[in-house]
Amino acid sequence: MRFVTAQRNNKIFVGIVEESEKVVHLHLAEQAMQKRMTLPSSLLECIALGDEFLNRVNEIAAWVKENPSTQYMYDLHDVRLLAPIPRPSKNIFCIGKNYADHAIELGGKLDIPQHLIVFSKVPTTVIGHEETVLRHADVTDELDYEGELAVVIGKRGKAIRKEEALDYVFGYTIINDITARDLQERHQQYLLGKSLDTFCPMGPWIVHQSLIENPNKLQIETKVNGEIRQKASTEQFIFNVETIIETISRGITLEPGDIIATGTPAGVGKGMKPPRFLQAGDVVEITIEGIGTLRNKIGE
Amino acid sequence: MRFVTAQRNNKIFVGIVEESEKVVHLHLAEQAMQKRMTLPSSLLECIALGDEFLNRVNEIAAWVKENPSTQYMYDLHDVRLLAPIPRPSKNIFCIGKNYADHAIELGGKLDIPQHLIVFSKVPTTVIGHEETVLRHADVTDELDYEGELAVVIGKRGKAIRKEEALDYVFGYTIINDITARDLQERHQQYLLGKSLDTFCPMGPWIVHQSLIENPNKLQIETKVNGEIRQKASTEQFIFNVETIIETISRGITLEPGDIIATGTPAGVGKGMKPPRFLQAGDVVEITIEGIGTLRNKIGE
Repeated sequence: MRFVTAQRNNKIFVGIVEESEKVVHLHLAEQAMQKRMTLPSSLLECIALGDEFLNRVNEIAAWVKENPSTQYMYDLHDVRLLAPIPRPSKNIFCIGKNYADHAIELGGKLDIPQHLIVFSKVPTTVIGHEETVLRHADVTDELDYEGELAVVIGKRGKAIRKEEALDYVFGYTIINDITARDLQERHQQYLLGKSLDTFCPMGPWIVHQSLIENPNKLQIETKVNGEIRQKASTEQFIFNVETIIETISRGITLEPGDIIATGTPAGVGKGMKPPRFLQAGDVVEITIEGIGTLRNKIGE
Repeated sequence: MRFVTAQRNNKIFVGIVEESEKVVHLHLAEQAMQKRMTLPSSLLECIALGDEFLNRVNEIAAWVKENPSTQYMYDLHDVRLLAPIPRPSKNIFCIGKNYADHAIELGGKLDIPQHLIVFSKVPTTVIGHEETVLRHADVTDELDYEGELAVVIGKRGKAIRKEEALDYVFGYTIINDITARDLQERHQQYLLGKSLDTFCPMGPWIVHQSLIENPNKLQIETKVNGEIRQKASTEQFIFNVETIIETISRGITLEPGDIIATGTPAGVGKGMKPPRFLQAGDVVEITIEGIGTLRNKIGE
C-alpha cells in the first residue's frame, strides 16, 4: 500500500495509490461505501490511529475494487502530490555520515563515525514531489543534494530494542536532505545549513512497511540532470534502521509520524573534485528500490 | 502581562497572572463577560492570532478588574502551572556557546564562536515549572543544567532585519537546557544529548515583550540546591537577540510560537573542576530579571 497526501480542485486529501496507478480518495470512497467518514483528514493523524487506520483502509480498498468509480478514483497525473506528511509535528530527525564512503568524501577515514550522529531539519523545510527547491542565492553559494531513505514511525515508543524496532515503523519514503554546505560548515552544528525553507523534498508517497522486506537492503540512486551522482545500497549503512531506532529511542520517546532520514551515500556535489553544487534549473531525482522516484527542480 | 498554561481540576486552560498573583482563567472570564468564548484553547494558537489576541486579553483584563470573581480568578498556588507552550509545533531552537566564559569553560578560547551555533531540542522534552526532570541514569552519567533566556516568536517572518527583530517577539520565558554531556560529546551533533524526555523545563510563564525593556540586559542566575552556580547578565551575549533572529530567519521562516533558547552563561556542572553533575533529588532554580524563577527537581 502506498499512501499519499494529494490535492485536487484545491482540496487536500489522504489517498492510496493502487497498482493500476489510480489514486483513491479515502474520505470520498469511505463516504460512498457507507455514507459516513470516520478517518481523520491528515495522514499524520491517520498514522497515529495505528492498526485501526490500516484495517479501515483495507476495507475501503477491498470495497473500491468491487465498486470502481471516478467519483473517488483519479489518474495519478490528475492530482498534485504533496509531501506525504506536509507538516511534521516536530523537526525531521536526520542521521549524519551513515555511509563510510560519504564520510570519507567529506573529510577522511577519521570522519567515519563510531556513534550515531543525529541532527534535524525544521518542519518548514518540507515540500513535495515535483515542488521547487528555492535556490537561496542570497544565503548560500554551495547548495547540495543528499538522497536518503526515510523511516516513518507508526507507533509511540521509548527504549525500543533492535529486535522489535521494525514493528514501530509505519513505512518508508524518500527525502532529499538539501544542504547549504557553507552554512553547515560555518555554523558548526548542522541545523541552519540543513533547514532553509524548501530544503526537505519528501515523497512521492509512503510505502507501507509490509511491502519492504528489508530496509537495509535497498538500491538508492540520485541523478542530477539525468547524470548518476549517487549509486549505493542501504546495505552499506554504518548504523542500520534497527540500530538508529534503538539509539534515538533510548531516552527519547518516538511518536507516530516522526520521520528519520537515514543518511546519504557517497556522491554529493561537495565530494566531487572540483565540487559541483546545484544551480537554478537543475533537476534532482532520487530513486529507491521498492519506493519510487522523488523529483525536484531547483528554482531561481 | 504574564501568560500561563495552567491546570485546575484536571482541566488545562490559558491564563494571565495579575500583579496580585491571581491567575485569570481567560476562557471563563471571557464567557462571564459576554456569554461566549472567542479565544482558542491553547496559548500557541492564541499567540498566532497576534494583536487580536492581545487586544482581547486587554479587554478581558480590564473587565475582570471591575468584576473580580473566584469563578475565574484563582490563587497562583491553587493551580498547577504547565510549560507555557507544553507542546511546541517544532523543535526548540537553541543557541550554543553564546557567552564567551561558557565557551571557555567547556574548552578554551578557540571555542568562542565566530558564527551563531544553532541546534535543537525535540518537543517531547518540554515540561513545566516544578515538574520533575528524569535522571535517565541508564543513558547518561553526566546530567547537567543550563539556565537560559528564551524568546517566543509572535509573528511569522523571514529575512527579518536586526532593526525590526524585536517586533517579531511575543515575549520571554526561562528554559533549563538540560544536557547529557556524555551523549553530547559522543554523538558529535548535540540533538541526542539535548533531547531526552523532560530535558526542557520551561516557564513559569511567558512575560510579554512590552514588559522587558531590553532582553540583552537582564540578570540571570542559576542555583543548584540553593548554591549559586551561574550568575551573569545577558549583556554578555556574543550574539544578541536581534542578531539571533536575523541570522536564523535569513533562510528559515520563523512562525508564531517558535521558541529560541539563547544560550547559557559560565558555571555549568561540566565546567567545574572536578565536574559536578546533577544527581537524583537535586533542585535547580533559574531566575531571570523581569521574568521570575523556574524551579525543577531531578527525579530518581
